[in-house]
Amino acid sequence: MIAKEEIKTYFESLQDRICAALEKADGRANFHEDLWQRAGGGGGRSRVVQEGEVIEKGGVMFSAVWGDLHEKMLQSMGLKEKVDFFATGVSIVIHPRSPRVPIIHMNVRYFEMSNGEFWFGGGIDLTPHYIVEEDARWFHQQLKAVCDKHDESYYPHFKKWADDYFFNTHRNETRGIGGIFFDYQKVNPTRTKDQLFAFVKDIGEIFAPIYTHFMAKNQALPYGEAEKTFQLLRRGRYVEFNLVHDRGTKFGLETNGRTESILMSMPPLAQWVYDYQAVEGSEEAKTLALLKKGIDWL
Amino acid sequence: MIAKEEIKTYFESLQDRICAALEKADGRANFHEDLWQRAGGGGGRSRVVQEGEVIEKGGVMFSAVWGDLHEKMLQSMGLKEKVDFFATGVSIVIHPRSPRVPIIHMNVRYFEMSNGEFWFGGGIDLTPHYIVEEDARWFHQQLKAVCDKHDESYYPHFKKWADDYFFNTHRNETRGIGGIFFDYQKVNPTRTKDQLFAFVKDIGEIFAPIYTHFMAKNQALPYGEAEKTFQLLRRGRYVEFNLVHDRGTKFGLETNGRTESILMSMPPLAQWVYDYQAVEGSEEAKTLALLKKGIDWL
Repeated sequence: MIAKEEIKTYFESLQDRICAALEKADGRANFHEDLWQRAGGGGGRSRVVQEGEVIEKGGVMFSAVWGDLHEKMLQSMGLKEKVDFFATGVSIVIHPRSPRVPIIHMNVRYFEMSNGEFWFGGGIDLTPHYIVEEDARWFHQQLKAVCDKHDESYYPHFKKWADDYFFNTHRNETRGIGGIFFDYQKVNPTRTKDQLFAFVKDIGEIFAPIYTHFMAKNQALPYGEAEKTFQLLRRGRYVEFNLVHDRGTKFGLETNGRTESILMSMPPLAQWVYDYQAVEGSEEAKTLALLKKGIDWL
Repeated sequence: MIAKEEIKTYFESLQDRICAALEKADGRANFHEDLWQRAGGGGGRSRVVQEGEVIEKGGVMFSAVWGDLHEKMLQSMGLKEKVDFFATGVSIVIHPRSPRVPIIHMNVRYFEMSNGEFWFGGGIDLTPHYIVEEDARWFHQQLKAVCDKHDESYYPHFKKWADDYFFNTHRNETRGIGGIFFDYQKVNPTRTKDQLFAFVKDIGEIFAPIYTHFMAKNQALPYGEAEKTFQLLRRGRYVEFNLVHDRGTKFGLETNGRTESILMSMPPLAQWVYDYQAVEGSEEAKTLALLKKGIDWL
């Protein structure tokens, strides 16, 4: 069976490949690296771009942490006795300069406990400032193709999971056009650890081709002040989702995680206007009308 | 004993007086009013300024809501049976244009339940983008003077409460220079409802003189790009506090409150820089060093 060290090593190499691909596609971006240690065990390698050509602010974070499982986590899992844990993963959020290029988020992770339980989680989801249905279809097609290679039930299941997860309940709108999200993927009679890991690797590897596609295709599209303002408002909603609803962010902040690494997901600049209303029939109104669960983008 | 209608009427008139005082001090600001109804009972009068002369974005909100107490609130109070509630209050957040003028927050509120329990809560706290110790002293002196009129134990008690409450644990820093914060102020052998209400009224009435003092005194002070950037970063921390820690905001968003009224506290524009570090010895570094609990500003 695959050892945790192998998964950790793979995630580290994935971070390297993704950073290299993003730097190349950006042309100017240079990831700044911070190595950090966690008091309770393990640490991470945070890589952040600020002021790239296409990427205004983005982070590609690797971490591998271990130690006593936090009290809050024991509670949430209904565990009564202390256990040790090991967790490793890669987490990405990219805020592009142009409102024509979408915000993207990717995460792949592996979690194991000293009681013998282990599972994988992850996903990729897209938050276009302006939704272009053609782009949305292409994005979901890529995800479905990767999912189908492993299990045809994955895409419909994980697509719905993303719709439900990336939802700003207090705004009654999705964060973007979703994608796939999955957690607690465990070994079972029809699924080996090798197979689960192979799926997670494929998700990790599809990230760079997907995002560099949008970087190349959309970065030169024209936009003006109105589009820039709408981008800042959409980023405000991104902030709201991450700080109010995102479990990973909340859990990280509550359990004394590395704040700068967790909040690398914050946009470079965001705006709030009281009671913003899009002009009827505008491009903005069209996007807002598409921020709904259950849309079949394919 | 004072009836809830009297408290509600007072809060409504307080909103009127504060809006008038702020409009006069600003010179250009015009509060835009939205009346809203709550499905379960009651409603509110939201008043918001955007693009004033001194005030870049600010809200002075009044509400009076009633009905079945929400499941989450019953739980948090350890109540097993359904009760009706009535809640009314005024809530203010002002984001000024100049980084030399502080952000301010004020809240006064009254809560009553059909089981006969009732209490007052409230407070005023200040978040200067740049801390000026002279201004901080003056601000705390005003609060202490109002508190001392009612009970000399109030200021030290409520000042500490504000330090503890307005604390960004994940940043290990206070939101600003605090002020006073209090909740669950109930009738007891040494305190009548009249006395509690008189104190809350005095807190409400001191808000406009305090803030218009800072508007008049600091609005013309010079600043440049560097100060504007630091202001945007401090506003980012304000967003973090309100969305991650503020109980009122979290509770409002979880219980289907009016999102636009709750999130009027969001700044017009905010910025995040990965791992921002102030230059040693700079004005910014001085401010950051003062974002600590337990400072005696008097």
